Amino acid sequence: MNKKVAIIMGSDSDLPVVKSAMLKLKEFDVPFEVHVMSAHRTPNEAAEFSKNAMSNGFGVIISAAGKAAHLGGVLAAHTTIPVIGIPIKSSTLDGLDALFSTVQMPSGIPVATVAIDGAENAAILAVQMLALSDKTLSDKLIDMKKQMAESVKAKDKHISQEINKLI
Amino acid sequence: MNKKVAIIMGSDSDLPVVKSAMLKLKEFDVPFEVHVMSAHRTPNEAAEFSKNAMSNGFGVIISAAGKAAHLGGVLAAHTTIPVIGIPIKSSTLDGLDALFSTVQMPSGIPVATVAIDGAENAAILAVQMLALSDKTLSDKLIDMKKQMAESVKAKDKHISQEINKLI
Amino acid sequence: MNKKVAIIMGSDSDLPVVKSAMLKLKEFDVPFEVHVMSAHRTPNEAAEFSKNAMSNGFGVIISAAGKAAHLGGVLAAHTTIPVIGIPIKSSTLDGLDALFSTVQMPSGIPVATVAIDGAENAAILAVQMLALSDKTLSDKLIDMKKQMAESVKAKDKHISQEINKLI
Amino acid sequence: MNKKVAIIMGSDSDLPVVKSAMLKLKEFDVPFEVHVMSAHRTPNEAAEFSKNAMSNGFGVIISAAGKAAHLGGVLAAHTTIPVIGIPIKSSTLDGLDALFSTVQMPSGIPVATVAIDGAENAAILAVQMLALSDKTLSDKLIDMKKQMAESVKAKDKHISQEINKLI
Amino acid sequence: MNKKVAIIMGSDSDLPVVKSAMLKLKEFDVPFEVHVMSAHRTPNEAAEFSKNAMSNGFGVIISAAGKAAHLGGVLAAHTTIPVIGIPIKSSTLDGLDALFSTVQMPSGIPVATVAIDGAENAAILAVQMLALSDKTLSDKLIDMKKQMAESVKAKDKHISQEINKLI
Amino acid sequence: MNKKVAIIMGSDSDLPVVKSAMLKLKEFDVPFEVHVMSAHRTPNEAAEFSKNAMSNGFGVIISAAGKAAHLGGVLAAHTTIPVIGIPIKSSTLDGLDALFSTVQMPSGIPVATVAIDGAENAAILAVQMLALSDKTLSDKLIDMKKQMAESVKAKDKHISQEINKLI
Amino acid sequence: MNKKVAIIMGSDSDLPVVKSAMLKLKEFDVPFEVHVMSAHRTPNEAAEFSKNAMSNGFGVIISAAGKAAHLGGVLAAHTTIPVIGIPIKSSTLDGLDALFSTVQMPSGIPVATVAIDGAENAAILAVQMLALSDKTLSDKLIDMKKQMAESVKAKDKHISQEINKLI
Amino acid sequence: MNKKVAIIMGSDSDLPVVKSAMLKLKEFDVPFEVHVMSAHRTPNEAAEFSKNAMSNGFGVIISAAGKAAHLGGVLAAHTTIPVIGIPIKSSTLDGLDALFSTVQMPSGIPVATVAIDGAENAAILAVQMLALSDKTLSDKLIDMKKQMAESVKAKDKHISQEINKLI
Repeated sequence: MNKKVAIIMGSDSDLPVVKSAMLKLKEFDVPFEVHVMSAHRTPNEAAEFSKNAMSNGFGVIISAAGKAAHLGGVLAAHTTIPVIGIPIKSSTLDGLDALFSTVQMPSGIPVATVAIDGAENAAILAVQMLALSDKTLSDKLIDMKKQMAESVKAKDKHISQEINKLI
Repeated sequence: MNKKVAIIMGSDSDLPVVKSAMLKLKEFDVPFEVHVMSAHRTPNEAAEFSKNAMSNGFGVIISAAGKAAHLGGVLAAHTTIPVIGIPIKSSTLDGLDALFSTVQMPSGIPVATVAIDGAENAAILAVQMLALSDKTLSDKLIDMKKQMAESVKAKDKHISQEINKLI
Repeated sequence: MNKKVAIIMGSDSDLPVVKSAMLKLKEFDVPFEVHVMSAHRTPNEAAEFSKNAMSNGFGVIISAAGKAAHLGGVLAAHTTIPVIGIPIKSSTLDGLDALFSTVQMPSGIPVATVAIDGAENAAILAVQMLALSDKTLSDKLIDMKKQMAESVKAKDKHISQEINKLI
Repeated sequence: MNKKVAIIMGSDSDLPVVKSAMLKLKEFDVPFEVHVMSAHRTPNEAAEFSKNAMSNGFGVIISAAGKAAHLGGVLAAHTTIPVIGIPIKSSTLDGLDALFSTVQMPSGIPVATVAIDGAENAAILAVQMLALSDKTLSDKLIDMKKQMAESVKAKDKHISQEINKLI
Repeated sequence: MNKKVAIIMGSDSDLPVVKSAMLKLKEFDVPFEVHVMSAHRTPNEAAEFSKNAMSNGFGVIISAAGKAAHLGGVLAAHTTIPVIGIPIKSSTLDGLDALFSTVQMPSGIPVATVAIDGAENAAILAVQMLALSDKTLSDKLIDMKKQMAESVKAKDKHISQEINKLI
Repeated sequence: MNKKVAIIMGSDSDLPVVKSAMLKLKEFDVPFEVHVMSAHRTPNEAAEFSKNAMSNGFGVIISAAGKAAHLGGVLAAHTTIPVIGIPIKSSTLDGLDALFSTVQMPSGIPVATVAIDGAENAAILAVQMLALSDKTLSDKLIDMKKQMAESVKAKDKHISQEINKLI
Repeated sequence: MNKKVAIIMGSDSDLPVVKSAMLKLKEFDVPFEVHVMSAHRTPNEAAEFSKNAMSNGFGVIISAAGKAAHLGGVLAAHTTIPVIGIPIKSSTLDGLDALFSTVQMPSGIPVATVAIDGAENAAILAVQMLALSDKTLSDKLIDMKKQMAESVKAKDKHISQEINKLI
Repeated sequence: MNKKVAIIMGSDSDLPVVKSAMLKLKEFDVPFEVHVMSAHRTPNEAAEFSKNAMSNGFGVIISAAGKAAHLGGVLAAHTTIPVIGIPIKSSTLDGLDALFSTVQMPSGIPVATVAIDGAENAAILAVQMLALSDKTLSDKLIDMKKQMAESVKAKDKHISQEINKLI
């Protein structure tokens, strides 16, 4: 049976950013669950979820949180499956606080950190991990890469030829 | 009976910085315990300690951690007694990562943050909190303040008079 | 008699941010006073207020200021009751100037710093301090923590079940 | 057959930091290769390596580079297996340049970033990924987590009991 | 025959910023081509372009990219003609990530970096390079400098005389 | 005869910020001139102006510039009268670039730097300098200080009494 | 009678940096006093000193402080003579905290800020201010500027001629 | 006749960093001159040098300066030949001040900025510019690139084969 991905947001206000992770997982037909759990407001629920994630069929946890973003670290503390952290930009410091709080983990407990608000990449990274033992996913990733390249080449063709009209 | 202060370090390597907090509490005759607990390596122990801190006679928790310093937030998540956070400077980023990870807490779960490596002030702040209902401590704080002023005045006298010898 | 909380703003332009501290104190039925005092424009008034705060029945001072935010430090210089500092974001530097000016206090004079614009947490921290000797407040804090958790759980239930409609 | 991990350093001067990644992989009996390849000095070699990594039996690539650390991104551009990036601290900017250059990847091409100089965590993260389809590795990770906890508990016991001798 | 300038954008979303580089090259009658090529999505195309740039008649490459801006470095890795990098400001970190990713190149592979979003200066710098062996361009640059000075002097005259109306 | 103040903007786009410096000088009846001069576009004019500033009756130069703000330093290089620098916030980096470029002057050539966009303070600082030998100005400064204090006290009275209506 | 300069350090540990300000004032034969006064430990002394500075014959106050450097602002709050602030680098954050705390003053109360640890420039700036009404000082400043230029020219001559021996 | 490169240091203390630029130019047999000229201490000499640089046979100016590094901008203001800026790391702020002061140039006056302390790359960039019309230099650059690649490949071979001895 395919392993699921868990997407855990620290707050429901993170949904607009995190949405693109869900859409990307859907695109890859990777089963996923979405939860709102806070490292600070529902620490027991977050810990419980993480402790049971592996036995509940999850292969990867994606965590999204802003400010002093402890969620990734707290989830990673309770499991040995990979935890991916999305630092969320909030009203001050442009996401730098969340980036530092997510990426600067001490030895022993990594959180695989993507760009500030980089939800789509979090999903792709999760798929890459699952694809290590799933040929279908692996092939889809190769397809996606080709399509990305084609899309850029099409834009290149358009802009390089039409530049006189565009500027 | 007097409430105790708990000093929780994320790593025993924080001891050289945290030491001054202990010495200051000793100076005020405030009972304290010291523990090494990690938000990431011993999350259950940290959570348990915090959940029981109030009933175990603690009035204030001082937390010291570096890098993605989640310890203060994790302790604060499990208790309603005040948690003071000391961001510890580590080998990169000059403590800015620990500062952001400690101070930028989301609404609902404050961590009273002091300066990077500001262990002595963490202790004084803890004493100030306990002194709210302890006249003896309160008087000692007033004494300490006077002595600090006297010490600066003595240095002023020395330097202002001896400046020609000093430069 | 219950100790009061003083909320001191450096400028009346800080009111929109600081308001949430007042509402939170009201929610806890903690008596409070609000003042506009400037470390730079009315330094004497600020110093006088702080010197007399303890004898005037204040247990905690909350200070809110932006830019080179000296207000917390100036108030802390004249009292031994705890001073909580809220760094206010202003038009440049995203509040980092106020954060550094508030949190990086020298040894001897702590200011308990909360997040940039973290007024609500400043109020909760003040309540936590007063609750050290006030069982009613302490119980209310425990209630608030439960309600926060319930609120997150309700959001989790909603989002985890309705996610297909939400994305 | 077990998938291998590739460790690619941008410069042989990164060896002292990257060494701990190798030791950790050895500890887990995960086969690995080590290479010095530069995104800027040997771009063809780096691209070739990455293009063929999957077919050559690699499951994960760990990349270590400092300054304008393009290595992780360049490797990730040519493969769909997960790329882990270690930002290396160099003589200026305290590793912040390498962190930003590694983590802030555009949509489509994630690099799983760990802390500045966080080589050990890069290795653990690689093992976590491989463990998704390898029960032995998964069990070893659970063991390691237990041992880390035991080690912290032992330090806690020592420090909490001997604190009077230590300060 | 005159050498051409290549303007390579990492994404077509960079066009609004990069446009001013094109207009400036047009102003100098310097032939140029515009392409969209991504260091991460079309790495082969970027590498190919750069490898052949010199033989295809290009004298200078201008590269524009945001976030973990690897484009300048990737292009510079494959050519010995000068590469000018424009760090593009994106939605977080105010362009600081792109600046560090562009300017902090390791020894051996320089990228001539201009200001964040400094597209016009990238074009002028390219012209300055080409002007080293092109007297016409050199004279045009001297003219442009004079006109810039005249323009500032006219503004000075206007403001210094009309200031009472302007404030 | 009274010494004049020169206000030099690097660009006429700085006028909206710099305006408040003019209004403040007007308020103090200090004679002033306003110029647009660029350290980079009209370096000769800037140098000439500065060389002759003293003999032309100027006592203080106020300089306002953004980005790599060299204007203050260039003016200071050619005169021995005090140069005050206002770092102007531009479209990226929130004024930090201008602050560093203005304040971090090497030994021998100070630029008296005020806050980012701190034009009003630049004017007050200029008046303070001129007031050292001008009793009338000195008295006006004392008046201004009193009025500022009165204004804050009035706001304090209003807010402290009306707080229930305001929140 | 000539106006004096006051040099106020927040701590006697600032003496090694501040020393160069004293030596420079001595070089100019400007009378000065040196004091250790803390915005936080001896706030009354600092306020008193500043209130009486003008009547006690001081023309300029130089303030030196590190971390959350409030000293300049506190002194400026109580006087209308110019206050020059030297941000002192301390053990963390490389002086950025002191720079922000000193320069980002709110409207109405400027502190003329020099570079981090820029004590010599603080003295020169003070002399420039006093020189506005003191022809002797003004001439000395012109001399110093000439000597600085001569010194650089001598170094230029040496290095430009001996470069083959130096590299 | 071949165009010369001018290397201008803001201070002779920059020599240890700038030395590698000289050695690199020597390696390429590019004629160069070295000068110490300060934007602030010898502004006239710097301006004169720059105004005459083109007619004196210079093709490129390399500028090296620390702190509020105005030298690159000042030189660029007076010439239309390319100016390359090396931001020099000094005792505070890790070179970030010099980087911002060098790279954030306003439209019209570019400074081609290399990495902090990136003197070697400044020389290579200068050679790349001169090579646009000098086949010999162009061939030497291609050779250097090959040698760099060979050197990395040799290190790769060594490390990849000897890794068991090295860790």
